Amino acid sequence: MEAMREIELKGHIIDSFLLPKVFDKVMDMNGEFEILEFEIGKHKTDTSYARLMIKGRDQEHLDDIIGELHRLGAYLPEAEDAIVEEAPKDRVVPKGFYSTTNHTTYVKVDGEWRRVKDQKMDALIVIKDNEAVCTTLGHIKKGDRVVVGNKGIRVVPPERPRGHTIFDFMGSQVSSERPSQALIREIAEEIYEAKESGGKIVVVGGPAIVHTGGQQALAELIRKGYVDALLSGNALAVHDIEYNLYGTSLGMDLKTGELAPEGHKHHIYAISEITRAGSIREAVEKGILTGGIMYECIKNGVPYVLAGSIRDDGPLPDVITDTMKAQDLMREQVKDADIVLMLATMLHSIATGNCLASHVRTICVDINPATVTKLMDRGTAQAIGIVTDVGTFLPWLAEELDALEKARKQEAPTLKAKGKKHKRKTAR
Amino acid sequence: MEAMREIELKGHIIDSFLLPKVFDKVMDMNGEFEILEFEIGKHKTDTSYARLMIKGRDQEHLDDIIGELHRLGAYLPEAEDAIVEEAPKDRVVPKGFYSTTNHTTYVKVDGEWRRVKDQKMDALIVIKDNEAVCTTLGHIKKGDRVVVGNKGIRVVPPERPRGHTIFDFMGSQVSSERPSQALIREIAEEIYEAKESGGKIVVVGGPAIVHTGGQQALAELIRKGYVDALLSGNALAVHDIEYNLYGTSLGMDLKTGELAPEGHKHHIYAISEITRAGSIREAVEKGILTGGIMYECIKNGVPYVLAGSIRDDGPLPDVITDTMKAQDLMREQVKDADIVLMLATMLHSIATGNCLASHVRTICVDINPATVTKLMDRGTAQAIGIVTDVGTFLPWLAEELDALEKARKQEAPTLKAKGKKHKRKTAR
Amino acid sequence: MEAMREIELKGHIIDSFLLPKVFDKVMDMNGEFEILEFEIGKHKTDTSYARLMIKGRDQEHLDDIIGELHRLGAYLPEAEDAIVEEAPKDRVVPKGFYSTTNHTTYVKVDGEWRRVKDQKMDALIVIKDNEAVCTTLGHIKKGDRVVVGNKGIRVVPPERPRGHTIFDFMGSQVSSERPSQALIREIAEEIYEAKESGGKIVVVGGPAIVHTGGQQALAELIRKGYVDALLSGNALAVHDIEYNLYGTSLGMDLKTGELAPEGHKHHIYAISEITRAGSIREAVEKGILTGGIMYECIKNGVPYVLAGSIRDDGPLPDVITDTMKAQDLMREQVKDADIVLMLATMLHSIATGNCLASHVRTICVDINPATVTKLMDRGTAQAIGIVTDVGTFLPWLAEELDALEKARKQEAPTLKAKGKKHKRKTAR
Amino acid sequence: MEAMREIELKGHIIDSFLLPKVFDKVMDMNGEFEILEFEIGKHKTDTSYARLMIKGRDQEHLDDIIGELHRLGAYLPEAEDAIVEEAPKDRVVPKGFYSTTNHTTYVKVDGEWRRVKDQKMDALIVIKDNEAVCTTLGHIKKGDRVVVGNKGIRVVPPERPRGHTIFDFMGSQVSSERPSQALIREIAEEIYEAKESGGKIVVVGGPAIVHTGGQQALAELIRKGYVDALLSGNALAVHDIEYNLYGTSLGMDLKTGELAPEGHKHHIYAISEITRAGSIREAVEKGILTGGIMYECIKNGVPYVLAGSIRDDGPLPDVITDTMKAQDLMREQVKDADIVLMLATMLHSIATGNCLASHVRTICVDINPATVTKLMDRGTAQAIGIVTDVGTFLPWLAEELDALEKARKQEAPTLKAKGKKHKRKTAR
Repeated sequence: MEAMREIELKGHIIDSFLLPKVFDKVMDMNGEFEILEFEIGKHKTDTSYARLMIKGRDQEHLDDIIGELHRLGAYLPEAEDAIVEEAPKDRVVPKGFYSTTNHTTYVKVDGEWRRVKDQKMDALIVIKDNEAVCTTLGHIKKGDRVVVGNKGIRVVPPERPRGHTIFDFMGSQVSSERPSQALIREIAEEIYEAKESGGKIVVVGGPAIVHTGGQQALAELIRKGYVDALLSGNALAVHDIEYNLYGTSLGMDLKTGELAPEGHKHHIYAISEITRAGSIREAVEKGILTGGIMYECIKNGVPYVLAGSIRDDGPLPDVITDTMKAQDLMREQVKDADIVLMLATMLHSIATGNCLASHVRTICVDINPATVTKLMDRGTAQAIGIVTDVGTFLPWLAEELDALEKARKQEAPTLKAKGKKHKRKTAR
Repeated sequence: MEAMREIELKGHIIDSFLLPKVFDKVMDMNGEFEILEFEIGKHKTDTSYARLMIKGRDQEHLDDIIGELHRLGAYLPEAEDAIVEEAPKDRVVPKGFYSTTNHTTYVKVDGEWRRVKDQKMDALIVIKDNEAVCTTLGHIKKGDRVVVGNKGIRVVPPERPRGHTIFDFMGSQVSSERPSQALIREIAEEIYEAKESGGKIVVVGGPAIVHTGGQQALAELIRKGYVDALLSGNALAVHDIEYNLYGTSLGMDLKTGELAPEGHKHHIYAISEITRAGSIREAVEKGILTGGIMYECIKNGVPYVLAGSIRDDGPLPDVITDTMKAQDLMREQVKDADIVLMLATMLHSIATGNCLASHVRTICVDINPATVTKLMDRGTAQAIGIVTDVGTFLPWLAEELDALEKARKQEAPTLKAKGKKHKRKTAR
Repeated sequence: MEAMREIELKGHIIDSFLLPKVFDKVMDMNGEFEILEFEIGKHKTDTSYARLMIKGRDQEHLDDIIGELHRLGAYLPEAEDAIVEEAPKDRVVPKGFYSTTNHTTYVKVDGEWRRVKDQKMDALIVIKDNEAVCTTLGHIKKGDRVVVGNKGIRVVPPERPRGHTIFDFMGSQVSSERPSQALIREIAEEIYEAKESGGKIVVVGGPAIVHTGGQQALAELIRKGYVDALLSGNALAVHDIEYNLYGTSLGMDLKTGELAPEGHKHHIYAISEITRAGSIREAVEKGILTGGIMYECIKNGVPYVLAGSIRDDGPLPDVITDTMKAQDLMREQVKDADIVLMLATMLHSIATGNCLASHVRTICVDINPATVTKLMDRGTAQAIGIVTDVGTFLPWLAEELDALEKARKQEAPTLKAKGKKHKRKTAR
Repeated sequence: MEAMREIELKGHIIDSFLLPKVFDKVMDMNGEFEILEFEIGKHKTDTSYARLMIKGRDQEHLDDIIGELHRLGAYLPEAEDAIVEEAPKDRVVPKGFYSTTNHTTYVKVDGEWRRVKDQKMDALIVIKDNEAVCTTLGHIKKGDRVVVGNKGIRVVPPERPRGHTIFDFMGSQVSSERPSQALIREIAEEIYEAKESGGKIVVVGGPAIVHTGGQQALAELIRKGYVDALLSGNALAVHDIEYNLYGTSLGMDLKTGELAPEGHKHHIYAISEITRAGSIREAVEKGILTGGIMYECIKNGVPYVLAGSIRDDGPLPDVITDTMKAQDLMREQVKDADIVLMLATMLHSIATGNCLASHVRTICVDINPATVTKLMDRGTAQAIGIVTDVGTFLPWLAEELDALEKARKQEAPTLKAKGKKHKRKTAR
């Protein structure tokens, strides 16, 4: 016996591909649909509205379809309060729990729509004191009131950006065949504008930054205030410190490419020296560490999270060896980020991607296209990928930011503010 | 002064994303649109219809927009005959020439819509004796009547496939993280069904087929009739022949991985022996070549095109060293292909992709995801990519085809035909 | 003022490239050498002997050169006892500490040469109760007696394998252009023989094993006793459990490639169900988990280490979230390994490589050549790399092992033992 | 019955790894050796000498072993004149022909050693008027006197470079983890010095140079005289010309990354305009083409070879569509090259590598490590690979060359010449 239910679609439902995606999904799942009402916005700024009847073979089939449409952004008009159930045990979910997307989400609690806090994907929604919080499985406690089913939940996918930005520069495919310098200029503009307008920029970086000789440029970016938080691991910090203490990276002289005598020990010495000082901060304060990425973080008050991994030597005393604790600290840093710049690290990029809401502008730079592909495959669909060499990318980025600073200084201050605002309005 | 013009959209315009793509493009190009009429099909098999007024800043701006919409599949209702101009010189285009997509295209000639023959992308349309033929720049002769502008032309993009096929198995991203054996099974089914229903299967292959040990499986596929044409180059044929004459590939024993004594000469001997015989066919007829890919092509009457490249040693007497002539022969083979299977060759895959209409099912197998990405970037958007090792892919494919043959033999013949037809109907 | 010192080279010094490497290094470092004595073995089984005078610009220069030669395997004839110094603080090294290679090493303690235990690279040697133990920086305790300088230390690099084995099948470059099936057959023989002769086989695996559909083959290998320990992370275990509970991997049906309804929740349910049961073992014992990789580990008493990472969802209760603790457990498993098979995981492969002595046969299978390159760059030079798809590799490997088992059963038992021994003698 | 024969090794036989390679090869082939005489150079500039008796199972086995040792550089002391046989037919080899390496080779003709001209690998040696010429199979004519066997032939492998050069900067593995800017600086120095000392620099380039935005930097290098010949194909030239005529590459505006209106036609227009003019030279002379890579080639008299491929659109009238003719022209350009710089093209790099003698300094820049690996796998072992983005590499290279020019101008002219000579002496 057939089951059926009405859904509504509102907003830029054609422009955002929501309508065709809904039709698509229903047909893919062998359901049927009928259009009950359809008003299309006549101009590009108008929103549209559609009311559809969705039909399934039976109630279960229909529920499956509705569940998927809901994740795409369909509304269930008869919206009642969300249903909650208590977690039966620490880190154990109630049956039928609602699994989040990374899109902005609202939950109806006591008749009112509340925006879910700390949005990220594949998490649960816990209701506490009338607040809805996106909570990862690892933080679910026995008795937590977890949202189940999909009643009383609204998902709002991001509108696609309009106007020329780096984010439509890229096609959907990840390719090394893009104009590298032009792309870097665009990224520099994004970063520059974000900084000017008080945005938060988080850098996620791997040790290849140092191996490929990009550490000075990154240190400069930190010094100049373009980085608000650094997420990385033991290796980046150790290589950076080794380079600053001994001029080598894993014993190789980064200027000549030759192995330094006894260079293979530098790595261990670097860790040992910081351990002797007590921490990176103490090494800076005692005048032991006098330059580089980590030094600039300390000097400029930029928080960093060095997450432990099983590959680590040492590790440095600053490393958080408990991965769950490290994850919490990373999440804390990215939850209000505006731009996340991922540099040459698959592990940290995907880990960070898991914590990001879909509106965060995410730029992933890697010489291996597979890193970006994996990031997107795992749901960070908003990421744009730049397939290039981080060792040439970072110095160019620093040069472009320099050029922007100089250009800005030459503008009259009143014009500047005006110009910028205008630009941002048309740009997005 | 504003300019405006009506366009029509017909068919599965929502399901095929045509409508949102049109809205998108107009907005991207800073034009405006107004919806004059809109009837949406109420069920999934219904077609829809929309009439839109498109506005540009001026006539030139409008023409630019209309040109792009037209390529997407928009109709210009006031369709007159297509306009033609004569080519001023061999291989020189008339200004404003119409550049083809790889989608099915119709041209209005003397008041009648004619389907363009030999559809491929980035070519010109030449009208000759009331026939419209897709013609590459290299074949344009002085005085050819070339279609210019976009009046009197209709582009019909393919409908997206429905039902479960290998072609929706894949997401849009190219990834190595797919269930390899399940994918290979699906491809085997596609190939098996295509063969059963009399379809044409073209294999495009590179020398890695032999290096990785896949040559016996490919030879078996040819022997069993699963390959209707082979497009390749000197290297594949030489390696295949070397293996069959001496058991080595570039001197390496493919069974043990060791270099054979004097093995480095085998490559040259192989070419020399075929040259001595006169051609591959003569080498087979004289009993010199007794197995392998090329042998099976000769024995089973499977045509092959061995296109020359600057990397070639020799080359074999069968190689077409003139690249333009080789291209013509390749085009001839693929113009009525149903399935094109591209195996471990970037050069030949992209060259073949350039000649394909968008309705040809194209499967690209390569261990390097960049090959598939480049193929799609260059317009062969219908290709699905399988990131795997051709040396394990081909033997599995042969095993799966074996299994399908055995399964089929056990079915009753009447049921079989019926079952198949039914399947194909629902499957697409 | 020039400084000079004698060194000795013993053993297969030409065959192992030791002599030319020594000459090379001296010249690269702008030192000089004079050959004082040189006796070359006249036949291939003979060892050779050389005594050289090494000269540097001054004592420091000489020491640098001697330090490097020593790491290559040069002896200092006047060998006195190794010098030790106490670690000044937990995890802080004494100046001039000796940093280990991954080659077998002897230390002279109280006039006697002692073999260093738990050999691995980039570690320190701690002398305790006349025993010399390779100790990572993280385990150095204040007061530990650490070997410094290079007196009283002998490094014995491995001889290169002789005869035909998979390990000379590969050139030094990592390439996808190898005969895949032949390589897999060779690996199957290595594994089969290792098992027959009681060797220990450790598998290091990433989640792509499940994504690509290789999990059933790996489960079979475990069931049949070919795996003595499994080193992995949360993701492999969760995907394996998800597949066994729900037939999906990250919600995708591995048989059809389609997303299952509500499939996106399966991942979280899988973790939650194991958490509810208490652990993987308890889930097996309670009949919740009834097949797959982890199930076979439990059923066959194969120890596993699931090391935590910042990418983890959940994680499973069995995951060791402290990376240093996980590293210790991994080290424990590999220290007596004979073969380590690394499957589609860069992080775990490099982490495991760091713990391996150079005589352990290491096979690294990945579709990305960069994984193998990085592994070798970081010192695991003995690894051979197979660039292929783990989703087709594992099923072939299982088939080849099957074939070997059947072949063995048909041999007479006495012949079998004899044959095998003979083979192993000539094979290495 | 055992067979035996004496061989001699002369020169830097230890330093160049010749001796251990010989031992290795004999053992690998299951032969035996005895050392009859051995004098080792006592200092690094001394040469060494060894006389060995090689034993095989029988004459054929011995011949196989001797054949391989000979290719490594072993001398056969009883050297008689080389044996020649006539080619039985055009492009057909006499049995037992000698297949060349890419190392400098001498042939004994009428009692005198003659250096083989146009050395390249996998070719034959033809004796004509007492001259020995390396000849590819495709150029063998019936009756040509071809060297067979390995009597009267000496192969002289290159000595490994000493001192610090870019060529020992790289390890043997191809890796993206090198300090990019430092590497580029070294390459700039190599190029700068080569130019100063009148060396010939050949650039081999692919279309990605234009896609990634590197075309202006390459044009600058040509204008400044750093390029003596350009080997490429239709695509690079068309993209370069399209960019210079329309500001786009495949229709994409390289400054903004946006598709230009009608941009998809630019590619065809670019070819058509050059065809209309007659050739690239005529387009430059008529003022149609006014900048870019091809323009600078014409203006600065830099010869170029545009080799045809089956991927070509058009092609341009300058393209050599016959691949064998194109190969001949490429060979002509590289036969006296000192440096070959390969940029982002696998096909042209391998094709060029096939034509190079082993003493030519070869630098291969590609974002895909597989390109370099394949180049080396196919015998161009002297190539060093830089895994980076050609779109950032070329601008940095141009900047570094600028800096070198400025630095040089500030030196006194006498010092300059002196300094340079001194540098080169120590540098190699």
